[in-house]
Amino acid sequence: MKEFAITITPRLYETDALGHINNATIAAWFEVVRVRFLESLVDRDPGILKQWILASVQIDFIGETFYGVDVTAKIVEATIGNTSFTLHTEMFQGDKQTVRGKAVLVHLDLASKSPARIPDDLRAKLAEL
Amino acid sequence: MKEFAITITPRLYETDALGHINNATIAAWFEVVRVRFLESLVDRDPGILKQWILASVQIDFIGETFYGVDVTAKIVEATIGNTSFTLHTEMFQGDKQTVRGKAVLVHLDLASKSPARIPDDLRAKLAEL
Amino acid sequence: MKEFAITITPRLYETDALGHINNATIAAWFEVVRVRFLESLVDRDPGILKQWILASVQIDFIGETFYGVDVTAKIVEATIGNTSFTLHTEMFQGDKQTVRGKAVLVHLDLASKSPARIPDDLRAKLAEL
Amino acid sequence: MKEFAITITPRLYETDALGHINNATIAAWFEVVRVRFLESLVDRDPGILKQWILASVQIDFIGETFYGVDVTAKIVEATIGNTSFTLHTEMFQGDKQTVRGKAVLVHLDLASKSPARIPDDLRAKLAEL
Repeated sequence: MKEFAITITPRLYETDALGHINNATIAAWFEVVRVRFLESLVDRDPGILKQWILASVQIDFIGETFYGVDVTAKIVEATIGNTSFTLHTEMFQGDKQTVRGKAVLVHLDLASKSPARIPDDLRAKLAEL
Repeated sequence: MKEFAITITPRLYETDALGHINNATIAAWFEVVRVRFLESLVDRDPGILKQWILASVQIDFIGETFYGVDVTAKIVEATIGNTSFTLHTEMFQGDKQTVRGKAVLVHLDLASKSPARIPDDLRAKLAEL
Repeated sequence: MKEFAITITPRLYETDALGHINNATIAAWFEVVRVRFLESLVDRDPGILKQWILASVQIDFIGETFYGVDVTAKIVEATIGNTSFTLHTEMFQGDKQTVRGKAVLVHLDLASKSPARIPDDLRAKLAEL
Repeated sequence: MKEFAITITPRLYETDALGHINNATIAAWFEVVRVRFLESLVDRDPGILKQWILASVQIDFIGETFYGVDVTAKIVEATIGNTSFTLHTEMFQGDKQTVRGKAVLVHLDLASKSPARIPDDLRAKLAEL
């Protein structure tokens, strides 16, 4: 089983006055790892982004995320349906897990703007995860 | 039953290249309405923010949010537990609902840094919702 | 002489770990007041935004901006050239000025994508400032 | 002469509806490269950030910055005064320069909260640039 992982170095403006990384920033990082993952399926073609609608996102904040330590953000699993799939994400600072979440993405037919079956080549790539 | 509502005017930098308000911005707006609601319980004392930990957030994107139209963000319900409560949020552009979500907040004893029972005066205020 | 002013309520995620509003947030607010001003010239038509390129921005941080106090952001002057104009901006919390800055905007001919003379009707409106 | 350079991969939420990287994002990236540079002078100790106040920033937008291409952000020069110094920054996408700017940082004595002479060891490090 493969994982998809990226490293995010927290930025000063991503902290808040409570002294840690702000929760809204974590949601933004979810987009970062999700988008990089989608682009990795198609050789970094940003055109793919128009084919996917984010239907829902769920984030559990397991521990605080701090400035000064790199974050590893992973896509650990993809559950594939007919027209949608669910990406499971985890984030870590060192050995400590800070975040667990999932996002449901719906595949869109660009002509009709309605949900469409996920193509077989993408299914094959997602299944490798 | 009362509702808590604020108006958010979308900003240009909150859009993205797909032509609508970015999903990470929506998560940030969730914080805006949640924080304003918490502050409204205590006459806008930002000190209250240290007493609450965001445990989880869930957001359903029902429709696209567009630039150029004000957003109404509402806290429509609060489900109160012992040490935590769940805030239910909805967002609208005009008559059209764009977003539905919920956030679980844990009440923290500042001395021990551990979860503590929500005080009765806050329970009374939350129950009014 | 007229001024253009908007009120911005600082958001929690706009603070940083140094305990005040982050400097990058201030730059983002510059866009907010500038865009609202441009849209006010044409009855809030966002289409106008494509006609202007931001050539440069300069911001002096006169004092810290704090969470919990509304900010008044003003366009206090517009210096009009042939194809560009300079907008002078000031921000205040209560009586205290926090920020002074200016932005140079170039008017663009949408067909040729090159700088074009600012139309007379816009000149008249800018001259009122 | 040494340069300090970092690579920034544009994020989807950093674009705007005009189809490029938003100007406020560029200002935020200025903070990223400036902070990384300051931390590099002291082995990544974030404590140093409290010793510097950003007095002003100036950014010239030379060309549009696009999604999908990594950005190289450089500190190309530091002009050292008594209690302050000016950092000159440039950004590139491939061979194309997109941004040029400078930031004035004032050194603060943490006890008195007033401007203080930049220490000799930092002067030596800045002079290497």
